[in-house]
Amino acid sequence: MKRIATLILSIAILIVFGLVLPAQTQSKTNGPVFLSDNQLVRPANYREWIWVSSGLGMTYGPREQSGSAEPRFDNVFVTPEAYRAFMKTGKWPNKTMFVLEIRSSQSHGSINKDGHFQGDVVTIEAEVKDESRFPEKWGFFPFRGSEQSAKPASPATTECQACHSRNGAVDNTFVQFYPTLLEVAKQKGTLKPVPADSK
Amino acid sequence: MKRIATLILSIAILIVFGLVLPAQTQSKTNGPVFLSDNQLVRPANYREWIWVSSGLGMTYGPREQSGSAEPRFDNVFVTPEAYRAFMKTGKWPNKTMFVLEIRSSQSHGSINKDGHFQGDVVTIEAEVKDESRFPEKWGFFPFRGSEQSAKPASPATTECQACHSRNGAVDNTFVQFYPTLLEVAKQKGTLKPVPADSK
Repeated sequence: MKRIATLILSIAILIVFGLVLPAQTQSKTNGPVFLSDNQLVRPANYREWIWVSSGLGMTYGPREQSGSAEPRFDNVFVTPEAYRAFMKTGKWPNKTMFVLEIRSSQSHGSINKDGHFQGDVVTIEAEVKDESRFPEKWGFFPFRGSEQSAKPASPATTECQACHSRNGAVDNTFVQFYPTLLEVAKQKGTLKPVPADSK
Repeated sequence: MKRIATLILSIAILIVFGLVLPAQTQSKTNGPVFLSDNQLVRPANYREWIWVSSGLGMTYGPREQSGSAEPRFDNVFVTPEAYRAFMKTGKWPNKTMFVLEIRSSQSHGSINKDGHFQGDVVTIEAEVKDESRFPEKWGFFPFRGSEQSAKPASPATTECQACHSRNGAVDNTFVQFYPTLLEVAKQKGTLKPVPADSK
């Protein structure tokens, strides 16, 4: 009887370690992974994160892309853990990571006769919230080509940080362009005041 | 000793049923749920499924939207279970469900000066593969307004079925417009021959 109990116990423990722990490990792989010098490892599975929105030919500065024959799509993804926290609180927790994926657009292909659908990846960039790692709390990481890691863009030399900090509707992020998250931020009261010159 | 073993066994079983089974139940809620008369329940959490791509102003028929001041975004999501199966096989399993979400577009707002970002939902439609339920294997469900269930569009009266069946790159689906899935289908050899008149 004691042997049978021990056997059943062993099987039960194996089930726990075999099923529960791998599931937990999998969910942890979405967070940012850093190498030396704050280099960020390219997130392999960002297309399986939560997609928050896409735009086409969006232009924040001078209208340089206006009239372009081939505007680009911007697709924005966020880690599932950060998304779930945002849905509850309207705020981004530490270790939040976004990926901005830029793709070419096409108008003619298969049965499509007008408008635009998505083509190849042009580049990806990541934005990570890490309050202990970055003085400005957020870091920006432009991945060059297919490089497997990216150095943080220097806040002093990039416009990313200044523009996101100034114009982000929630924290450092452009929630104003993510319609479902915008509704959550309104409900939770976490929208920042809008700068007078960007209304 | 026997009592301690029984106690540990009970705890282990509780852990298994407390952690593993809820996780499995949650993952099952993504599949299609039908009421009487094959009515499909509106999927509540489709924005948390796998997003496969978005287009803007895509036009399959006559160019009626051409030159439209307000083209619409089409966002396509698929259930995570079906996505994982497709990544392994290049095929859609039974119970695959897609949601097509149509949203308005905006050009001017916040700091954006050109191009388009996404606005409110206009409508959603679902496409479900259920080989035992539909003679054509796939059913189409246009949700009117905020209705919580949708009747299947009749294959005899809708163009959806005919167009998808004829032009879908994989099975009944427009994988030709989902760049990451298209690569998988090419690798797995599951692309259909392209109809001569839609090349």
